[in-house]
Amino acid sequence: MNTPYQPAHMKWWGWGHEDVEFRSQAHPGFWPYAKRVLEIETDDFPIRRWDLETLQLPDPNIEDRLAAKLRSFLQPHQITSDRKERVLHAYGKGFRDLFRLRRGLATGAPDLVIYPESEREICLTVRTAADCDVVVIPFGGGSNIAGCLERMDSGRTTISLDMRRMKRVLEVDTQSCSARIEAGVFGPDLEQQLAAHGMTLGHFPDSFLHSTLGGWIATRSAGMQSDRYGKIEDMVLALRMITPDGVLATRAVPKSSNGIDVNHLCIGSEGTLGVISEATMRVHPRPEARVVHGYLFPEFEGGVEAIHECVLRECAPAMVRLNDPDKTALSLAFRPPSSRLSQAAGSIFKAYIRVKGFAQPKACLMLTAFEGNNKSTARQIREVRSIYRRYGGVSMGSGAGRSFEATKYDFPHIRDFLLDRNVTTDVSETSTVWSNILPLYGKTISALRSVTIESGVQPWAGCHISHTYQSGASLYFTFGFRQQPEREMEQYLCAKRAVQQSFIDNGATLSHHHAVGTEHLPWLTADISPVGVRAVAAIKAGLDPANIMNPGRLQPSPNALEDWIRAR
Amino acid sequence: MNTPYQPAHMKWWGWGHEDVEFRSQAHPGFWPYAKRVLEIETDDFPIRRWDLETLQLPDPNIEDRLAAKLRSFLQPHQITSDRKERVLHAYGKGFRDLFRLRRGLATGAPDLVIYPESEREICLTVRTAADCDVVVIPFGGGSNIAGCLERMDSGRTTISLDMRRMKRVLEVDTQSCSARIEAGVFGPDLEQQLAAHGMTLGHFPDSFLHSTLGGWIATRSAGMQSDRYGKIEDMVLALRMITPDGVLATRAVPKSSNGIDVNHLCIGSEGTLGVISEATMRVHPRPEARVVHGYLFPEFEGGVEAIHECVLRECAPAMVRLNDPDKTALSLAFRPPSSRLSQAAGSIFKAYIRVKGFAQPKACLMLTAFEGNNKSTARQIREVRSIYRRYGGVSMGSGAGRSFEATKYDFPHIRDFLLDRNVTTDVSETSTVWSNILPLYGKTISALRSVTIESGVQPWAGCHISHTYQSGASLYFTFGFRQQPEREMEQYLCAKRAVQQSFIDNGATLSHHHAVGTEHLPWLTADISPVGVRAVAAIKAGLDPANIMNPGRLQPSPNALEDWIRAR
Repeated sequence: MNTPYQPAHMKWWGWGHEDVEFRSQAHPGFWPYAKRVLEIETDDFPIRRWDLETLQLPDPNIEDRLAAKLRSFLQPHQITSDRKERVLHAYGKGFRDLFRLRRGLATGAPDLVIYPESEREICLTVRTAADCDVVVIPFGGGSNIAGCLERMDSGRTTISLDMRRMKRVLEVDTQSCSARIEAGVFGPDLEQQLAAHGMTLGHFPDSFLHSTLGGWIATRSAGMQSDRYGKIEDMVLALRMITPDGVLATRAVPKSSNGIDVNHLCIGSEGTLGVISEATMRVHPRPEARVVHGYLFPEFEGGVEAIHECVLRECAPAMVRLNDPDKTALSLAFRPPSSRLSQAAGSIFKAYIRVKGFAQPKACLMLTAFEGNNKSTARQIREVRSIYRRYGGVSMGSGAGRSFEATKYDFPHIRDFLLDRNVTTDVSETSTVWSNILPLYGKTISALRSVTIESGVQPWAGCHISHTYQSGASLYFTFGFRQQPEREMEQYLCAKRAVQQSFIDNGATLSHHHAVGTEHLPWLTADISPVGVRAVAAIKAGLDPANIMNPGRLQPSPNALEDWIRAR
Repeated sequence: MNTPYQPAHMKWWGWGHEDVEFRSQAHPGFWPYAKRVLEIETDDFPIRRWDLETLQLPDPNIEDRLAAKLRSFLQPHQITSDRKERVLHAYGKGFRDLFRLRRGLATGAPDLVIYPESEREICLTVRTAADCDVVVIPFGGGSNIAGCLERMDSGRTTISLDMRRMKRVLEVDTQSCSARIEAGVFGPDLEQQLAAHGMTLGHFPDSFLHSTLGGWIATRSAGMQSDRYGKIEDMVLALRMITPDGVLATRAVPKSSNGIDVNHLCIGSEGTLGVISEATMRVHPRPEARVVHGYLFPEFEGGVEAIHECVLRECAPAMVRLNDPDKTALSLAFRPPSSRLSQAAGSIFKAYIRVKGFAQPKACLMLTAFEGNNKSTARQIREVRSIYRRYGGVSMGSGAGRSFEATKYDFPHIRDFLLDRNVTTDVSETSTVWSNILPLYGKTISALRSVTIESGVQPWAGCHISHTYQSGASLYFTFGFRQQPEREMEQYLCAKRAVQQSFIDNGATLSHHHAVGTEHLPWLTADISPVGVRAVAAIKAGLDPANIMNPGRLQPSPNALEDWIRAR
């Protein structure tokens, strides 16, 4: 069978490809650090074995009529109800997702998986699904951590529509800095295809290796360099979305005044309205220069002020990532082994701590990326350094930056490593205006720390600030704690709820770039108001009256919080 | 009666306040130029007299029950069915609007006008309207030229909801560069209130003197300096919109991933979903320096390339406005009288033409505004000048810029002056990607010129490029022609249709910043696709099931073009 090439799936039980995992030897400081802060006293954990065959998942429910219809326009290699394929499409990579799979539960698995290779095949699949009252869940790379991918409607047959074979850059207009791109393309493949034209999208989320253009758009993703290139919603010039009501298609123009901007009905729709088949995106000439520098600040507050001043002075770098003291300690513990890079970074760090008299528990690492032509980059570096210096920031040079660059996509692997050691970790991120950054930071960290989880364990919590805008920035919280046997889910719910509730109680949003999914749904009504929720429901009712597209999403029930707690 | 202060209305028969009009003496070159290009041989036109009493308008239809309900929460000075008030709220300022009023027709007039002074009063008005099956049309400054304001539903009682008394800046967060503002505030008042905090919104549309924040948001307006500050949709952090289903309210955060962005359901909704009562907007510290320079280019194509290169090199000025040769001739004819400024501009222009050997019929005037701190502005000017120079652009210094600044809000007055002289003028604007700017320009100008209107008169047509983006820019066409008696409307429809059809046939959008209204409605389906139109209808059906908010908008019938032609 001549199966078209397709990017490999991630392992079903965790992050990354099956042959890649977090190796303690590559980050020798990490586990000792984790043991210390999480108060773990043993190294004795059972070796986990992942057995697909023992997983509980329902038998696929596929009516003959449906199968016959699908086979009339799809090749055999495009339809599967293979056990592993179904498990791979059961969930994203959120804590709740992985926890269930690791417990042997794959009840969220679809009945079958379809790999379309053309927009026509998507249209026919959606039409067939509507005819047969079958649910369709669009699937990109499966990297989502907010719970966007599992089936919510167990009563109806469910198709996972995996877009990864639609991965061509169809057209590049270098003059207009725009590119028409199929939605199933993965980050690295996309960048490679654009590089052939000297261009880049400039979108590098943490999930870059394992996520797709369509997924980014459907979830309002942000890349690490959003400071320079914007969030994904700022990059969309036009798109095509296949809905049960037909193809919604817009024109590639820079801006318009043609009523309500229907691009924005598709962006962030999380699969509930249709399947995004392609988009025309703003792209950019590849920068002549790119460099990442590390800086050390004596305290978090000064770092925040320094970033803010860069924004006000319009010399914001391509990326800033300011770690709070705990995240700084974690970053340093995560450094690669005794490479020269890492040694340099480590000893510079220690030297600065000593010489400058920084209190190590308060010192904060700030990573800053500069991009542009050689001249403008040099100017930016000078300007930023002079601002940072006023807030006590000292440059650690490009060593810390190279260390960050070398490991920037490795962070998600930590979670699997820690889950293997009975530690739960998760993240919640938000954005707020500058005047609220520090108040929100303080309240959220203390909400997290005051959650004394079941066993009496206080979670470790850290935060970084990134994604700066003229009016504010994103705060990204990471937390972790030792699991109390049989109470792992309660512990997670307790900590996650504390963070999300703090965001909403303190004027922030439920997520800056991770989507609503199941995990943030209880806070949607407070975020966009009941009328906002009903407006979204109205679009859904109009374009998908049979509710076949990823049902149960973006529509919190009156008991959303209870549902969220009860779901296992 | 203690009537609260409110900004004056524009004259009902034209643009601007009653005591302001285009004066030929102030622009001595204009009428001779117009006579020449429009082949007008007489100066003998009857003096028009505007008699409110002879206007045809239906008697107001106000049921006692409605009146009683309204009076229960509004003061007498907030409700009126006065003849002049009704006429003032009958239309915007489009050609079709003014043409009808000048013919004595005010059939679009609402039955009554309400001036709310609080969000509560808006809510109660909308609720009352829903109870009584009465139409509500939100009204800002009444400056819209796309036909957004007349009643489309003659069967039901119609309220014009005039927002001008809700004009306070409620809160300024200078640290976060944001301001919460009532939607009825006019441009100059808003800038004055923000200036007290050292801030500016940076939104200066041609209608600035006569338009409101709410109107800008509802129509996706763009200001002259959008190159620096963005379009209005880029400035909205949060808003509140009163719908028949309740208050849609969002949070002031820089960016979010909370599903479909409901801010974008309100932006561009043209009054069809509800009344925008307030918005939290990005604002900016007032720039230290601002200067407008004029440049002359030997030809249009080079000017376009020069602007584009500025964008690519990331040194785009706050405003660029490149006139094509005809628009250049018009601009020069429009110069103020023999002031020193104007003399200087004129003689510099002539000198350049002579010395540089530019062919006058091909020379193009480019206005460029620089803003920022003194240092960055000086750098920008140097960079831009060096780019312009490579395309043959020569600086005319700040004289031409000051002349532009002094008259920039006066252009709309020309139309009234010309209508008095039996000349029709109108504008259509769009945006497209860089690679399509010149093709679209050429095709649209020639479509316009090849419209040999009824009498055999060929329209005068000119264009300017402005509002630059990384991926493209806006093209703004102005056209005019002598009226053929009793065929004025056919002539208008013929020319307007040619431009709009050219936009749509050539990949552009129906409008960059003037909204859909009635005048662009026939092209909406082609622009956003039938599914896009149905998606908008679905939101409307959800939030306004009784269709009381500005009905008939954003929903083209299958015979939209015929309807457009037939409407008189």
